[in-house]
Amino acid sequence: MELLKTKIKEDGKLIGSNILKVDSFLNHQIDPELMAEIGKEFARRFEQEDITKVLTIEASGIAVALMVGLELGVPVLFAKKKKASTMDGKVYTGKVKSFTKNQVYDISVSSKYLNEGDNVLIIDDFLAMGQASQGLIEIVENSQAKLAGVGIVIEKGFQPGGKQLRKQGIRVESLAIIESLEDNQIIFS
Amino acid sequence: MELLKTKIKEDGKLIGSNILKVDSFLNHQIDPELMAEIGKEFARRFEQEDITKVLTIEASGIAVALMVGLELGVPVLFAKKKKASTMDGKVYTGKVKSFTKNQVYDISVSSKYLNEGDNVLIIDDFLAMGQASQGLIEIVENSQAKLAGVGIVIEKGFQPGGKQLRKQGIRVESLAIIESLEDNQIIFS
Repeated sequence: MELLKTKIKEDGKLIGSNILKVDSFLNHQIDPELMAEIGKEFARRFEQEDITKVLTIEASGIAVALMVGLELGVPVLFAKKKKASTMDGKVYTGKVKSFTKNQVYDISVSSKYLNEGDNVLIIDDFLAMGQASQGLIEIVENSQAKLAGVGIVIEKGFQPGGKQLRKQGIRVESLAIIESLEDNQIIFS
Repeated sequence: MELLKTKIKEDGKLIGSNILKVDSFLNHQIDPELMAEIGKEFARRFEQEDITKVLTIEASGIAVALMVGLELGVPVLFAKKKKASTMDGKVYTGKVKSFTKNQVYDISVSSKYLNEGDNVLIIDDFLAMGQASQGLIEIVENSQAKLAGVGIVIEKGFQPGGKQLRKQGIRVESLAIIESLEDNQIIFS
């Protein structure tokens, strides 16, 4: 998606050869017009799939997922990192390993909002090691719903998450895949 | 906003005489069409104000704030509950007291995205004790920006947060104000 790649080139900030900061438009400050375009692009790519629900994880996946849900005309569901005090009843849980914090935590959704009749599109802002996506896939599996695919705004192609998901036979659509952040340059695949 | 009140009546769940669960359309599962209508309504109410930025707090404020930002054509900024490892540099901080957890925590935004030239509209999904709003107001004050007002989807009118904000001279626009949840009934003001 050229609009996104241009935005990453213009506004992304590199920290070393591993971290790309896009908090001016994606995951702290948010550019609503860009989110709307991203929503349209994911909807276009998955429009043949009869998606019934968009699933993401709080917090920075929510904006993207909302625009996808709006375009597809289906509800959006976000997994919570902590079980809310008002989240009564049965939940579906997935495990997410955090490499930066070196710990495993649970994410969960209420079982009321996901079931075997659903065809789920997972949406997230970033894909690197793939742990958030794997946790969301675990939730989809636990709910007996069907998984239509995973839509990612920015995939770090030099980290193994995307490769692993595709090896599992999952359709992964990434709007920008970064091949390298070395030598202070952003190189797309 | 009648559409919202109807939705609350139809899909809201009461727990005792104090808790209204709206996690089927607002803060766990999200109804994108409703969010779009809510965004339009806030934009209509604040269109004379020359808003330059919409500010909210993760996670459940993000969806509403995004649609307001889209309608007003301005960026959305969400305060984080934990300082992210990639959030370098100066931040503006506000304090939020959690009554359910009986603790005070900091919320913060990067100083890059808020400054004295901004006219800020604070958006949140719920207003009860008003602590999240007060924390966001503290951030706006610390940044020297102007505060245009506070937009709330559901205000619990029987708790003191809204009254306190209005006493401070702040314009508060709530799309649905709940007067009482007693006797298993939702009564709007």
